[in-house]
Amino acid sequence: MKTPQEYIEGLRKLELVVYMFGKRVKNVVDDPIIRPSLNAISMTYALAHNPKYEDKMTATSHITGEKINRFTHIHQSVDDLVKKSKMGRLLGSLTGCCFQRCVGIDALNALSMTTYDIDAKYGTEYNKRFLKYLEYVQENDLVCDGAMTDPKGDRSLPPHKQADPDQYLRVVEERKDGIVVRGAKAHQTGAVNSHEVIVMPTISMREEDKDYAVSFAVPSDTKGIIYVIGRQSCDTRKLEERKIDRGNINFGGHEALIIFNDVFVPWERVFMYKEYDFSGQLVEQFASYHRQSYACKVGVGDVLIGATQTIAEYNGIEKASHVKDKIIEMNHLNETLYCGCIACASEGHPEPSGTYYVNTLLANVNKQNVTRFPYEIARLAQDIAGGLLVTLPSEEDMRSADVGEWIKKYFKGRDDIPTENRMRILRLIENITLGTAAVGYLTESMHGAGSPQAQRIMISRLVDIRNKQKTAKSLAGIKEDEQGN
Amino acid sequence: MKTPQEYIEGLRKLELVVYMFGKRVKNVVDDPIIRPSLNAISMTYALAHNPKYEDKMTATSHITGEKINRFTHIHQSVDDLVKKSKMGRLLGSLTGCCFQRCVGIDALNALSMTTYDIDAKYGTEYNKRFLKYLEYVQENDLVCDGAMTDPKGDRSLPPHKQADPDQYLRVVEERKDGIVVRGAKAHQTGAVNSHEVIVMPTISMREEDKDYAVSFAVPSDTKGIIYVIGRQSCDTRKLEERKIDRGNINFGGHEALIIFNDVFVPWERVFMYKEYDFSGQLVEQFASYHRQSYACKVGVGDVLIGATQTIAEYNGIEKASHVKDKIIEMNHLNETLYCGCIACASEGHPEPSGTYYVNTLLANVNKQNVTRFPYEIARLAQDIAGGLLVTLPSEEDMRSADVGEWIKKYFKGRDDIPTENRMRILRLIENITLGTAAVGYLTESMHGAGSPQAQRIMISRLVDIRNKQKTAKSLAGIKEDEQGN
Amino acid sequence: MKTPQEYIEGLRKLELVVYMFGKRVKNVVDDPIIRPSLNAISMTYALAHNPKYEDKMTATSHITGEKINRFTHIHQSVDDLVKKSKMGRLLGSLTGCCFQRCVGIDALNALSMTTYDIDAKYGTEYNKRFLKYLEYVQENDLVCDGAMTDPKGDRSLPPHKQADPDQYLRVVEERKDGIVVRGAKAHQTGAVNSHEVIVMPTISMREEDKDYAVSFAVPSDTKGIIYVIGRQSCDTRKLEERKIDRGNINFGGHEALIIFNDVFVPWERVFMYKEYDFSGQLVEQFASYHRQSYACKVGVGDVLIGATQTIAEYNGIEKASHVKDKIIEMNHLNETLYCGCIACASEGHPEPSGTYYVNTLLANVNKQNVTRFPYEIARLAQDIAGGLLVTLPSEEDMRSADVGEWIKKYFKGRDDIPTENRMRILRLIENITLGTAAVGYLTESMHGAGSPQAQRIMISRLVDIRNKQKTAKSLAGIKEDEQGN
Amino acid sequence: MKTPQEYIEGLRKLELVVYMFGKRVKNVVDDPIIRPSLNAISMTYALAHNPKYEDKMTATSHITGEKINRFTHIHQSVDDLVKKSKMGRLLGSLTGCCFQRCVGIDALNALSMTTYDIDAKYGTEYNKRFLKYLEYVQENDLVCDGAMTDPKGDRSLPPHKQADPDQYLRVVEERKDGIVVRGAKAHQTGAVNSHEVIVMPTISMREEDKDYAVSFAVPSDTKGIIYVIGRQSCDTRKLEERKIDRGNINFGGHEALIIFNDVFVPWERVFMYKEYDFSGQLVEQFASYHRQSYACKVGVGDVLIGATQTIAEYNGIEKASHVKDKIIEMNHLNETLYCGCIACASEGHPEPSGTYYVNTLLANVNKQNVTRFPYEIARLAQDIAGGLLVTLPSEEDMRSADVGEWIKKYFKGRDDIPTENRMRILRLIENITLGTAAVGYLTESMHGAGSPQAQRIMISRLVDIRNKQKTAKSLAGIKEDEQGN
Repeated sequence: MKTPQEYIEGLRKLELVVYMFGKRVKNVVDDPIIRPSLNAISMTYALAHNPKYEDKMTATSHITGEKINRFTHIHQSVDDLVKKSKMGRLLGSLTGCCFQRCVGIDALNALSMTTYDIDAKYGTEYNKRFLKYLEYVQENDLVCDGAMTDPKGDRSLPPHKQADPDQYLRVVEERKDGIVVRGAKAHQTGAVNSHEVIVMPTISMREEDKDYAVSFAVPSDTKGIIYVIGRQSCDTRKLEERKIDRGNINFGGHEALIIFNDVFVPWERVFMYKEYDFSGQLVEQFASYHRQSYACKVGVGDVLIGATQTIAEYNGIEKASHVKDKIIEMNHLNETLYCGCIACASEGHPEPSGTYYVNTLLANVNKQNVTRFPYEIARLAQDIAGGLLVTLPSEEDMRSADVGEWIKKYFKGRDDIPTENRMRILRLIENITLGTAAVGYLTESMHGAGSPQAQRIMISRLVDIRNKQKTAKSLAGIKEDEQGN
Repeated sequence: MKTPQEYIEGLRKLELVVYMFGKRVKNVVDDPIIRPSLNAISMTYALAHNPKYEDKMTATSHITGEKINRFTHIHQSVDDLVKKSKMGRLLGSLTGCCFQRCVGIDALNALSMTTYDIDAKYGTEYNKRFLKYLEYVQENDLVCDGAMTDPKGDRSLPPHKQADPDQYLRVVEERKDGIVVRGAKAHQTGAVNSHEVIVMPTISMREEDKDYAVSFAVPSDTKGIIYVIGRQSCDTRKLEERKIDRGNINFGGHEALIIFNDVFVPWERVFMYKEYDFSGQLVEQFASYHRQSYACKVGVGDVLIGATQTIAEYNGIEKASHVKDKIIEMNHLNETLYCGCIACASEGHPEPSGTYYVNTLLANVNKQNVTRFPYEIARLAQDIAGGLLVTLPSEEDMRSADVGEWIKKYFKGRDDIPTENRMRILRLIENITLGTAAVGYLTESMHGAGSPQAQRIMISRLVDIRNKQKTAKSLAGIKEDEQGN
Repeated sequence: MKTPQEYIEGLRKLELVVYMFGKRVKNVVDDPIIRPSLNAISMTYALAHNPKYEDKMTATSHITGEKINRFTHIHQSVDDLVKKSKMGRLLGSLTGCCFQRCVGIDALNALSMTTYDIDAKYGTEYNKRFLKYLEYVQENDLVCDGAMTDPKGDRSLPPHKQADPDQYLRVVEERKDGIVVRGAKAHQTGAVNSHEVIVMPTISMREEDKDYAVSFAVPSDTKGIIYVIGRQSCDTRKLEERKIDRGNINFGGHEALIIFNDVFVPWERVFMYKEYDFSGQLVEQFASYHRQSYACKVGVGDVLIGATQTIAEYNGIEKASHVKDKIIEMNHLNETLYCGCIACASEGHPEPSGTYYVNTLLANVNKQNVTRFPYEIARLAQDIAGGLLVTLPSEEDMRSADVGEWIKKYFKGRDDIPTENRMRILRLIENITLGTAAVGYLTESMHGAGSPQAQRIMISRLVDIRNKQKTAKSLAGIKEDEQGN
Repeated sequence: MKTPQEYIEGLRKLELVVYMFGKRVKNVVDDPIIRPSLNAISMTYALAHNPKYEDKMTATSHITGEKINRFTHIHQSVDDLVKKSKMGRLLGSLTGCCFQRCVGIDALNALSMTTYDIDAKYGTEYNKRFLKYLEYVQENDLVCDGAMTDPKGDRSLPPHKQADPDQYLRVVEERKDGIVVRGAKAHQTGAVNSHEVIVMPTISMREEDKDYAVSFAVPSDTKGIIYVIGRQSCDTRKLEERKIDRGNINFGGHEALIIFNDVFVPWERVFMYKEYDFSGQLVEQFASYHRQSYACKVGVGDVLIGATQTIAEYNGIEKASHVKDKIIEMNHLNETLYCGCIACASEGHPEPSGTYYVNTLLANVNKQNVTRFPYEIARLAQDIAGGLLVTLPSEEDMRSADVGEWIKKYFKGRDDIPTENRMRILRLIENITLGTAAVGYLTESMHGAGSPQAQRIMISRLVDIRNKQKTAKSLAGIKEDEQGN
């Protein structure tokens, strides 16, 4: 297993083509906007070496028997699934943001099942290829970006009917040694921190779309791959000299558009090739695992609750009954999310490949709550924080010879707390509810792993409504034949 | 294990003193208001003999090694805890009401831990007594009423300061062969269906209250015990000749006040005697198990969802997008409750006695959601059911020679569905959202196993807020010493 | 203006054909199940004679200049509209239930506009007829049932395509002196308390449905009219000798199916005849007024809040911060409803006929909230009331020589409050949240004046979304031509 | 009435002492961060000259009979109050942000009442002074900052017990010609756009705090006044060359801390001086008017709804039923807020001074909803906008020669919509839900005019709970004497 230092130094060797604010980023690793995102992902390496967290952070490879970072592990038991949920909460609570590595484990696990199932139907060798690739990932302790979401163009049309055929990533050439692909993947969290990009299709497909039914993995600095970093609320505060206004001093995330400008993929890295009938399964399996992964938001919730309790104490209002009650509500909602993460894991089961798979109904239910509760937790945090959250002057003002003393005098809350500490905790709450981390805690909670309507459709499909009707009718004394007549 | 028939016949032999509407009920078993409640509890016997449900409904006794009904089992593993949750949902979904037997298993499990812990501290022999009693319960497959809630009088005063000292059940006499107790237990669900009454104190106590710190078990027809049945919404519909207006034709529940008019308890049935310092623990352990037990409401939710889908179909509106969406929401909320039941069980652990205990934080979080979601599920059911739910004439009208044809003509929905079926399913929804089952599905969901504020206090105590603050401060760059300065 | 006594005595003279529980009700006025409903409507007469309420309860007829009961008044100003809202709240708060007379005023006002508009288009004389009828209603201070909702059969089909053509009320014969109609109207609140039935169509219609586009008024005991009373939760408690278990001792409501078995209507009582193009307008105008009328639920909310505060005091918990906060929330929601009733009235305007009409957007918004907030207010009431709400024995038990003393002893809360009073207030809360009044406070709030989806469709139509988009685009610097390109 | 140009040019003449990011701002008017805030306030001048909006934007002075900008008007009727609500919505909908001038009108109206009432009690001449001042404000069409919120230090202590006596603004010297004051006012929205600062106390006071019971008005550039601008989420985007990433291209707001470093106030500008017993009244009256003023958020809601409908169309999903339903919900919540603004105005009444005052109960109810609904509206907007809201690259990327074409290609939604337009509308939604306008639309909605708990306390005080209890008891048949026994 890599150390955080090895991870960071390794990234320096990648030759990524990254753009931000219209310019090429030459040194990705030390870029002040991107660096906090590397710091966050580094924690996935650091904690794996910490005996306190070892049980959650590491696992034993089912292919090599070696101790590996859990983020590269294929779940071999319900216990593995449960530990994945706990690892997510742990990392969220220690970084206060999206730590970006869960897409990789989810892509690997989904592929471990789908490649097996394709082979079983078609006699192909995808699973063998995949396992070889997996071993490489495990041995080198790599960060994999799981790239699913295509730009999608006009959402009312399938891939092959789009005005621009590249709106979904597709095979544009088949060669003897591999394939050439074109297209893009949007909303790629943590993309430029990754060693590998694992591409998957984004929707169920039919035969006409078979050129789009493709899954593969490539190194992140493969020729033809271009990254464009997305803006986040308050992103440029990270360019400022003073650090308090960042809120979260060290950690953050980033999102990127990945463009595949005719990228070559050798056959040994191709895991699905035109088996369009498995496209839907791969999407569903990745999505279900990823809906479980929102356990991380419980951890970010822990941070926001901790910050809120702290500002309540700094303001001297922590004993007011309405304040206590609101903090209870924040905890209640946060732990309700935790129940979802645990339940979908503990109700998991093995698939034919031997991989343990979450309970998909409960994973969808869990994610649906994630699209709601963090917004309410954030609203309650703002309630308790007070208006100063959005009227507080800059750290520069506090340090200024001209007005610094005024700031310290008039923004003092409880007498024994330095104004600076009050500012710091307010900036952290701003960061999570309006700033760079709000992107992850709120909007990504809404749309990551599928927007809320996607989960509703799945819930509708997965509940056994006929059985519920059967019992209801029986209790009411309704007698019907098999056809419901 | 008893059969349902043996259970019913056995009850006939009890000489219970039961009052209802101011009169003594002579034949409890065949009383039309009480009988549906027996039918519900009978299902806990019937399903245990059904191979399809055997895994959930039965267990192996850890004292005798015999196969026993799970309702008499002491949890020996996380798997036992999880199966208890599933058994609750199953029975709720097959009876559409409160099936009343969970208080017994919760009381037994709580006593298995508390008696052990008292012995460990005081060198007493409560656990031995308890295990002997448990063996008797298991062998005879008995229904135990877990009796905790005292009338409480003025809630601002502790037991020993009440104007009437009997507002909390207490020891009034100590004899050589046992004790004499006086007081009452309110809100006793399914009381007159029970073979045994297990009494526990209802709050934490201090030394001055030690006469109130008593726990014991007595046969339900012990001399001096008097039952008064509580009214339920629509209770007397069960007295009507026609059955459709009941909604749930066969099953129901009941609640009773149990009066202990100087009841003698032999020492071998006493499990706590003035060890006031364990009173709080026993309350908390029983309550935590019982908060898990609300898994049953997920089952009743299944019935209500099934009934709602059915009325949507009978009305011909099941394809309207808003109807589909509301049914998804009902399922979503119901499965969120299920996540709570599963999570608090799967995160369980063994206590010193060896008994497995639920995760108390998550059990409280679960119950808190139970005080909310069933109300919203019921509201949505009423939305889809339509106003006819509360304007529908009686079955007598439908059967009447004078107006029956009008009823059938004008209350016909979809052409191929008999009006009678439409009436039946509407009555079932009425039953669960306004009638006898609403008592259990709504108000008991609110107050059973403790009112919502009780859970909020527990949540507040059980979350590790200091640790959350520590991380938040660290992320914001706040440095404080150990004392938080 | 009639006195309550005159009203009651007048009803005795009607020869209504009423069925309940499959039997003809011979004496409607003194029937114990129906009588509370008459008592409620009597209050609309009583308060009109009370100087304290005169301003809200009476108005000056715009046709005769006489002082009249406001329930027969055509709104002549915004102030009239606002007073109608206040009258609704007042009556709800003094009866604790649906007082059933608002459908009449809403039907009269809607007809005052639609008849005028039909005449303007077609040169008919409906408005003249209507005004003559109105004068008769005002002079005799009559209760009018506004009958709109047809059974509707298969909801996916228009009237003329129904398998049974009578699923919508229709003209079956045109005579020289009038018309003969056949069909039924469902969910007729307070039907058998009415002197008159004013029939209106229930949906927008097209030419093929013109036989269904009919509006008229007939005396409630016209030959061919048959009433079948609907069941309500806990309806038969009104048959019991003891009164406490009713909760609301004197007041209640009722619902009926009205069957028109070939009823003759003379021309002077016909207000729309096959002008199908005005059917939608009449529906919308009646519905908008009626959505305003849900001001009454604010009054019932007042009662429920008062009862909840009282039980909190009786239980000795009224100073607990969570109890105070929940009562604030109940008030907050209740007053939010009141804002809607006031706003849709104060934003009213005159129509061509001179009648003042509510703001339809806000009336729909108001009603939409009525489908939600009473459920939450009821849930909070149950929270504070405690579980005793659904486990309380009957009044008979409390009066019983055998167990009465036990009941009084063990159901005593605060020492200075008689147990009987505690029982009474709990029964009132049960009545409003689960019993006969829950029918009106909850389910009727959901479906009366149109189910929630109906309001959502109206809201969608009535907001000026294009204008909102125009401003948004302008602020974002988007330039588009008139066609939005 | 001033024109916008006159307003802007006039501001140039002020010699304000303003700090931002630790540095003195020399040219306040042209500062890129502050300017959008001036643009917003300019709209209050511009619209007053627009015949289309004249009715809402202007009024007739009750002291001079001149036509004046409504923002300087003392309400003379219910109609004035209602128009104030409508003016607020109008300006919010045309600026998409806080336009900052409402604090002035609210301070003026509150002082018009309190000065009158102090004079009536103490025979002082505050009202005369005030009216003279008012005439000056009206004639010169001035922007007044209403400055109420003190820093408050330790919230558990009253002003005179604070460790630092300046935590509440106070009189430090009484001179023959006036007084000298010291302290600060926090959260001053639009402070540096104002001609005048009107200071009011922030809480009810007792005799010991009388030095803090002071109200007065001073020109904004009075010697000793120092402004420190607060940071807002995404504030520095306004410093960037490209404009699209701002979201709202022209309009914004700002917040400042105002420090009163021993500022002299001549007697003719003093409106309260140590009459501590009127401090609470002034706070309550200002707060109630200001709680009405949140009508502006309905206007911002209009913009957000318009933007959301637009992005739905740009994404091609506007016909999906869940999208339509969510937009209906946004409108429903927004119009519910509007009902509150209208109702508290239309239920207004005249106070002894002749000034019309809002219904304080409904004003508090309205504001309480404002602390909730905008958050849910924003959540729904983010739901429909899609994840691109937070992953979209910068305008610089879109304009870049290197990657601009990729951005245009892959971020195209519906084929006929330029990618640039899609970016613009997404940035506007980001602006209102996470960026500079979120400060006003969300956090200021929470805390402006008092935090939610302040409204709850007022609601608790203002409802007539005793009357509600009286009716409830009467309906339940409870007989009590006058003392409730």
